[in-house]
Amino acid sequence: MRISDLSRRTGVPVATIKFYLREGLLPPGRPTGRNQAQYGEAHCRRLLFIRAMTGIGQLDLSTVLELLAAIEDGELSLPGLYQRTNRVVYPDLDSSKAIDDVAAERDEVDRFIDERGWRVGPDVPGRNRLAQVLAALRQLGCDCQVDFFQPYAQLAEEYAERELSLLPRDEEIERAAAVARAVLLDVALAALRGIAQEHLVNQRFGDTAPPSGTVEPIPPISPRRPSTGAANGGHAARNAGPPVEVPRRPRRIR
Amino acid sequence: MRISDLSRRTGVPVATIKFYLREGLLPPGRPTGRNQAQYGEAHCRRLLFIRAMTGIGQLDLSTVLELLAAIEDGELSLPGLYQRTNRVVYPDLDSSKAIDDVAAERDEVDRFIDERGWRVGPDVPGRNRLAQVLAALRQLGCDCQVDFFQPYAQLAEEYAERELSLLPRDEEIERAAAVARAVLLDVALAALRGIAQEHLVNQRFGDTAPPSGTVEPIPPISPRRPSTGAANGGHAARNAGPPVEVPRRPRRIR
Repeated sequence: MRISDLSRRTGVPVATIKFYLREGLLPPGRPTGRNQAQYGEAHCRRLLFIRAMTGIGQLDLSTVLELLAAIEDGELSLPGLYQRTNRVVYPDLDSSKAIDDVAAERDEVDRFIDERGWRVGPDVPGRNRLAQVLAALRQLGCDCQVDFFQPYAQLAEEYAERELSLLPRDEEIERAAAVARAVLLDVALAALRGIAQEHLVNQRFGDTAPPSGTVEPIPPISPRRPSTGAANGGHAARNAGPPVEVPRRPRRIR
Repeated sequence: MRISDLSRRTGVPVATIKFYLREGLLPPGRPTGRNQAQYGEAHCRRLLFIRAMTGIGQLDLSTVLELLAAIEDGELSLPGLYQRTNRVVYPDLDSSKAIDDVAAERDEVDRFIDERGWRVGPDVPGRNRLAQVLAALRQLGCDCQVDFFQPYAQLAEEYAERELSLLPRDEEIERAAAVARAVLLDVALAALRGIAQEHLVNQRFGDTAPPSGTVEPIPPISPRRPSTGAANGGHAARNAGPPVEVPRRPRRIR
């Protein structure tokens, strides 16, 4: 298909496709003349993957490039691919921003993981991240024990189990699908946690949502309507704060 | 205390503290002479909050500013605070990157939420985000039904319940703590999911981690050692991809 068809099929604007081609996120098509090329299903899938990772997974393009490199790295086993994905999507915490002394929390986390019988290396990023969260919660005045996460750990294991069973049969797209799910699953779970929390807080502390009797019907979403919905309060909230243009990591500006 | 003590207490470098003061993330101290000011416990807590949100929560400073504004907004009820937090931390998906037609998936999600008896407004961001994830998974070749999330939804509700019970007694820091936990909890859960996944993938597809017989002992973390651990493979993986400096949202460069 031509680039215009590719754009129509994937919903990715032609200008963006050309940018991805320049940046090497998308392999070139088969030349069919000057400034003309044919693209195939592989290009389609690749574009949908990039779109899902950037648009829904909120990953930046350099991260997506790393994921693509891992997917295509023939040397990399499937376990290696999951490991790489974990480390690329959840990179080391900026050590200049992390809490220095999490020795006690790290011990707790390691014991917790051992007791679950999880066989993961000492370098699996989650160990330090979880220890950092525990330490931060304590610094902030909520004494949360690692056992707080016991029920979740159990379910997380079950989900990993079910998640693997979703692997599509098609070998060729299996690796991309595995990476995509690992990223999208966290987005979905965070979304659900937020919804459950709002429900419970409304229930507990007084309801800011319309009472169920008079719930306004959810407007049907027309294909053209941006999926983020103008009705969504998120946008207003997002622009609520003072516009401060600063680099993502203050470390850079020190 | 002086700014140097504040830095020692919180582990935030003086230069960063001064930057936060300039940007209004930190209220000024009590002047005690030219270029001299005294800071109190409130400054300490505020710095620890900012550090946790940027360092562990990986939020940028403008997002942290929005959270701080919400925490201090006396008009905002606790339910309102949770709602604001949800929308600030998980803003609308960039509509230019989202999937246009998620009508079917959105219907599924709405039905799912109704069946759970969750009373949340039609604009709670999670609805569209979850619909986007379902649509993306299908585009990518894995047909995942919303019921896939049934067990998680149940647990998410239990966690929201327990999470609220963690609210510290101290009224003054309650709101900041509520926001901090909402952000940090997702970090912790994602970390756990990643660990569980690596464990299971190792088990299922061959182990890349050292066999349990010969597991290398986890090195004790000395207080000075950066918590992100040089041993962590994440850093290598993070630098694996080609260095592409591009704006986070390709939309901007179109």
